[in-house]
Amino acid sequence: MATDKNKNEQMEAIVSLAKRRGFIYPGSDVYGGLSGTWDYGPLGVTLKRNIMQLWWKMFVEDREDTYGVDAAILMNQRVWQASGHVDTFTDPLVEDLETKQRFRADHLLKDAGFDVTGLDLAGLTSLIRENNIKSPNGNELSNVRTFNMMFRTFVGPMQGDELTIGEPGEDSPTSSLMNNLEGMKAVTYDPASVSYLRPETAQGIFTNYKNILDSFYPDLPFGVAQQGKAFRNEISPRDFIFRSREFEQMEIEYFIDPANWETEFEKWIERVYAWMDALGLPRERIHELEVKEADRAHYSKRTIDFEYDFPIGREELSGLAYRTDFDLMNIQRVAGKNMEYTVKGTNTKFVPHVIEPSFGVERALMAVLSAAYREDEVNGEKRTYLKLPIHLAPIQYAVSPLVRNKPELVAKAREVYTLLKERYGNVMWDDNGNIGKRYRRQDEIGTPYCVVIDFESLEDNAVTIRERDTTEQKRVSISELHDHNKRE
Amino acid sequence: MATDKNKNEQMEAIVSLAKRRGFIYPGSDVYGGLSGTWDYGPLGVTLKRNIMQLWWKMFVEDREDTYGVDAAILMNQRVWQASGHVDTFTDPLVEDLETKQRFRADHLLKDAGFDVTGLDLAGLTSLIRENNIKSPNGNELSNVRTFNMMFRTFVGPMQGDELTIGEPGEDSPTSSLMNNLEGMKAVTYDPASVSYLRPETAQGIFTNYKNILDSFYPDLPFGVAQQGKAFRNEISPRDFIFRSREFEQMEIEYFIDPANWETEFEKWIERVYAWMDALGLPRERIHELEVKEADRAHYSKRTIDFEYDFPIGREELSGLAYRTDFDLMNIQRVAGKNMEYTVKGTNTKFVPHVIEPSFGVERALMAVLSAAYREDEVNGEKRTYLKLPIHLAPIQYAVSPLVRNKPELVAKAREVYTLLKERYGNVMWDDNGNIGKRYRRQDEIGTPYCVVIDFESLEDNAVTIRERDTTEQKRVSISELHDHNKRE
Repeated sequence: MATDKNKNEQMEAIVSLAKRRGFIYPGSDVYGGLSGTWDYGPLGVTLKRNIMQLWWKMFVEDREDTYGVDAAILMNQRVWQASGHVDTFTDPLVEDLETKQRFRADHLLKDAGFDVTGLDLAGLTSLIRENNIKSPNGNELSNVRTFNMMFRTFVGPMQGDELTIGEPGEDSPTSSLMNNLEGMKAVTYDPASVSYLRPETAQGIFTNYKNILDSFYPDLPFGVAQQGKAFRNEISPRDFIFRSREFEQMEIEYFIDPANWETEFEKWIERVYAWMDALGLPRERIHELEVKEADRAHYSKRTIDFEYDFPIGREELSGLAYRTDFDLMNIQRVAGKNMEYTVKGTNTKFVPHVIEPSFGVERALMAVLSAAYREDEVNGEKRTYLKLPIHLAPIQYAVSPLVRNKPELVAKAREVYTLLKERYGNVMWDDNGNIGKRYRRQDEIGTPYCVVIDFESLEDNAVTIRERDTTEQKRVSISELHDHNKRE
Repeated sequence: MATDKNKNEQMEAIVSLAKRRGFIYPGSDVYGGLSGTWDYGPLGVTLKRNIMQLWWKMFVEDREDTYGVDAAILMNQRVWQASGHVDTFTDPLVEDLETKQRFRADHLLKDAGFDVTGLDLAGLTSLIRENNIKSPNGNELSNVRTFNMMFRTFVGPMQGDELTIGEPGEDSPTSSLMNNLEGMKAVTYDPASVSYLRPETAQGIFTNYKNILDSFYPDLPFGVAQQGKAFRNEISPRDFIFRSREFEQMEIEYFIDPANWETEFEKWIERVYAWMDALGLPRERIHELEVKEADRAHYSKRTIDFEYDFPIGREELSGLAYRTDFDLMNIQRVAGKNMEYTVKGTNTKFVPHVIEPSFGVERALMAVLSAAYREDEVNGEKRTYLKLPIHLAPIQYAVSPLVRNKPELVAKAREVYTLLKERYGNVMWDDNGNIGKRYRRQDEIGTPYCVVIDFESLEDNAVTIRERDTTEQKRVSISELHDHNKRE
């Protein structure tokens, strides 16, 4: 295994390649960025789309028992009151009393070597006081308080009026938590206008459960799946796209008869592995973490975190949770609507239980990139390449004329390009620089095959196919190109 | 043409069908909704994905000169300062002085029969005063002021402290615009933490222009395309998915040498029509509106609104604007980075100009639904069907055994189902109710073909294919089913 140093170097190499080659750029880059946001460049978009489309095919299109939805990001605030997010979706926060900078209290304490498992706000504060923990700037810290990770916004015209804040020390409104309002502003709003950027896609599924029942009368068990953006106001986003403030989720709520939860849960474990196989992730880098009762949400009877050996360490890639009837019962209670399912042809009614497989697109993408990243040596020169699975690679074929200035050669190469493009879609025309440079560039972006049309091609109607992983070249007749990929 | 009454009835029929059959539900439905948001059900998701995928193929995959990006929704606030959105992306607002309800001033005046073209805030206020215009509740109105349509949020931990608002009349902070703070709350924030939900996808393209240059060295002209969510805090969202607060855009910034803008613009007009043809929209319902100089943005030399005859009336479906170098020059000025393009092999440098074709997913979807909606009579019974183009229909084939309780028949039907599913993906198994009911249901969701396996099928290996548009049935051998669709 790589050492920590090697791992960090690998991570940096991937981040650098991702930017240089047009996979992933820092968000708002030209303006100095916005921490925790990332933009996908042309190759990153295609890789991301390939991953998301593969998931959709596997879990929605190919499954007769699963229905897709696409709910709005902005939802009625009652969704997040009922789900508990307004009250409890928080991180512990401390403030540097000098600089007013804010930090995750648990992170500061962990970095200082303390075990914070199970500690509440008072416990964290005591640990800071007893051990005289200072901020990273060496200053005194405030008491620990909660910080809600949901981004708040205001819907409708009852917002937007700026309020003047008095000078500190004057008889002016001050927050009980903030001693220094210098440089701060305030805005008024109607409490009824508050909405949040959804912190998960799951609630957009639960809120549509009844709609799906009414439109489709599904048999139990059935799944409802969604892909889409979610947002969390992380105090300190980090580790490239692993922990960002804006990300994409792929979630399924699988509605079941509670009598069957154990067997259904086992089936989902297999399906999670099937998905990771489809991503080309090596099984030996995947680890099941059975979440202990003390660490599980109170309503969950079983939760597995699927962890992956990322370059940044072993971290959660995907989750599988038995959520019982917690969410539907919350809706039934708060919305006052009946969430029962009636078994067809019977009078048996109950609120279904739920198994939730949850996947992060960025984490999948980062796992795919780090599993694919390779360095080797070819003819004494260092080479970097991405050993991406063919079905995920943003470019499947790069097509080149050996030289640019021979119209006959270019015409023949265009013919081959068109042929492959019609069949595979993701085909790139590449006539920049010499052939060696083209190969290096295509290696770096993970293109499995480079097809070169040379002067011989004009005679024998054959081309050279150069393979990314072996760097081997072989001669293939144009008429057999269609089958080339199939034979791999 | 349909009368206005018929048009409204048609709109209502489409909204009702969309909900009943699982295309589109009101957002946060189970909690009483959130105005201006919509959730896509299983059939709506597929229709939307088909439309977006068609666009991506046509304008990104099939165009060698166009690069895809997927930028974050949350961007650095300087993006929207530079673009002018912070200052000018506003609607005129008036407040009912009794109820505190707020309205679009221009809408109130238009509804009262006034022409508001070109009027500024003072002009709108004068018109209200001179004509003694009242709110819809009959009360006095405030002066007209601007309301910024961008949703505001706060990124990072420097937000979240609630401020106490004093009672009205006390010596407490009050907004100059709001006389009554009863029921209102206030929150403090660091001005540097402000971010907005992007009101358009275009700026996520412009901010990545330089990244694309650095990663791909494209020849001019080249396009950068993006699909994604955008948000506008409409004072009064309306007309189903036509004017919502959260929607999906598909935009291209096409970077050109300004010397060629007129010919490039003409080419884009043709491409816009090609797209509308691909959606199956009748040309006679599409109208080009050349936006007059007085109504164009000051930097634009030409803008065409492509309007469509929706059931709600003739409204904008798509836009095509020549934006000159306005956006790149804004970035160059505010970010202080050079936005010039160097023509390859020369010393010629300039900031490219831009042509922007802009498409709304929801508007395309609403045009497709309303173009497809049909009512006719079959055997004396009223029938509703969606004449969707085959390549957009959420379900291409529905496969049914004639009856459910004959295992042999079901097995044969499953065989046909699997065959079609492997080829077409969007195939539905439908064995609910009798055949007549199944046909009606599939008609309503726009399924072009229903395939029924009956007792004869067990003998002759043939099936009945029933066509949506003609309701005609024909007998086709299972071995020829693969080609059936091709022959249409």
